[in-house]
Amino acid sequence: MKLLRVGAAGAERPALLDPDGTTLRDLSGLVTDIDGALLADPSALERIASAAASGELPVLDTGVPGGTGGPRVGPPLGRIGKIVCIGLNYHDHAAETGAEIPTEPIIFFKAPDTVVGPEDTVLVPRGSVKTDWEVELAVVIGRTARYLDSVEEGLAHVGGYAISHDVSERAFQIERGGTWDKGKNCETFNPLGPWLVTADEVPDPQALSLRLWVNGELQQDGTTARQIFGVGELVRYVSQFMTLYPGDVINTGTPAGVALGKPEPKPFLRAGDVVELEIGGLGRQRQVLADA
Amino acid sequence: MKLLRVGAAGAERPALLDPDGTTLRDLSGLVTDIDGALLADPSALERIASAAASGELPVLDTGVPGGTGGPRVGPPLGRIGKIVCIGLNYHDHAAETGAEIPTEPIIFFKAPDTVVGPEDTVLVPRGSVKTDWEVELAVVIGRTARYLDSVEEGLAHVGGYAISHDVSERAFQIERGGTWDKGKNCETFNPLGPWLVTADEVPDPQALSLRLWVNGELQQDGTTARQIFGVGELVRYVSQFMTLYPGDVINTGTPAGVALGKPEPKPFLRAGDVVELEIGGLGRQRQVLADA
Repeated sequence: MKLLRVGAAGAERPALLDPDGTTLRDLSGLVTDIDGALLADPSALERIASAAASGELPVLDTGVPGGTGGPRVGPPLGRIGKIVCIGLNYHDHAAETGAEIPTEPIIFFKAPDTVVGPEDTVLVPRGSVKTDWEVELAVVIGRTARYLDSVEEGLAHVGGYAISHDVSERAFQIERGGTWDKGKNCETFNPLGPWLVTADEVPDPQALSLRLWVNGELQQDGTTARQIFGVGELVRYVSQFMTLYPGDVINTGTPAGVALGKPEPKPFLRAGDVVELEIGGLGRQRQVLADA
Repeated sequence: MKLLRVGAAGAERPALLDPDGTTLRDLSGLVTDIDGALLADPSALERIASAAASGELPVLDTGVPGGTGGPRVGPPLGRIGKIVCIGLNYHDHAAETGAEIPTEPIIFFKAPDTVVGPEDTVLVPRGSVKTDWEVELAVVIGRTARYLDSVEEGLAHVGGYAISHDVSERAFQIERGGTWDKGKNCETFNPLGPWLVTADEVPDPQALSLRLWVNGELQQDGTTARQIFGVGELVRYVSQFMTLYPGDVINTGTPAGVALGKPEPKPFLRAGDVVELEIGGLGRQRQVLADA
């Protein structure tokens, strides 16, 4: 199923996208929100599936979500607990940044308050000259994961997938002392969505294409087949260091093609730029940059 | 005022500690929780103060909170948004770890799900041989802080203070690749409390003594006077990189005396160890270690 949240920021209502890809159904009579509690409750997910199959869910909108005139699409997940991010998880991206291939996953964090909808404005922070893009596969945890033993167990704890834009300020991240978190947590720095695709509809998370355009020009063109550490291994690995709860998110890293990896002058983002992101089967995002 | 939350984990009720230091008053008739929304609402805080002054608040317990037979004391803040941690923020601690004095604050993160009550069990992670202690002054944000201009503005955005135990696994933090976050986010790694002291009762946050004992032996004995970056400057600085919201927490760093800074064999924590922490005017914590 494709689950999403539509409406004004902070007041989104849960919705379902029909298999036709254009009809939005209202889920607010069935569930209070799309969140970790829902993903951890198989009976609630079954109620949605059976209501969808019977055709009884009220239509909310018939435009393509996010299209002109349609309702605003929010992030497809409420009450996110934490966002664990994996650094340098594609061979080609590690190479373009001049970093060595990690021998084990690199972990950093984004705060849940950085999350915005897939079409919301992204703000270039004050004083920033190195705001960069990163298309990523987001893994949404569906069951509490603690000291897992295997890749298979890791995959079994995934509730769904979404597109994540891990916006990054490279000077803040690398040149200002300390950890990467300083350049990863500016407001609006994590557009998420448009929808959360439940794990049952993504049979192989290592076979997804990822693409990102800036002002119409293709900048990233990768596939999760080239991840150094795959989704099941990431969930297993992270669960050795911290407990993952339903509604937690793992941003699984970005392929080559970020501004940081380009020749000088590097094309960092500025107000007015337009970034579009796409992952096969997970939809599409589009953000316009503005000054904070 | 000294605000706290008492009761079973996940079902705490808001309470007030009387100036006598032993009588707990029930606030659940006045407010739903002690959280960012409360701190951001001066009229709600005034309602508590005036109810307390009139003596009309029902008594919840008369034992010293956390004492034998009293109710469990939970973390004094619900719905924490994010926990921003400052690394190497005391001259003596930077020296003991062999690090250079930072020229600007070092930022890393703890997830809110690591927070437990001040007397709750702390778990030594599986595979850990370097679990370490860190007594810290926690700053709780009371007003949204975004691109603040001055130290004074920084202080004006603080809602209150508490003791924070920034438990750390040094091998995970330093020897496993990537950022410090890997060793800072194990479950139970952030005891907080016992109470949140509102900012009006802490006239000078740079004049607080901090002490920590392990198995009765004094290990850390510092003062916030020796912070490299003071509270107001930290709030101002962090607000240049991310927006701070009511209910966010800043762990402001630890003074010298951690296990990492001791001669070999370093006395890292093991199951059965007892850690006690104290900050002048902010109360006292006590945790027993156990295996995860």
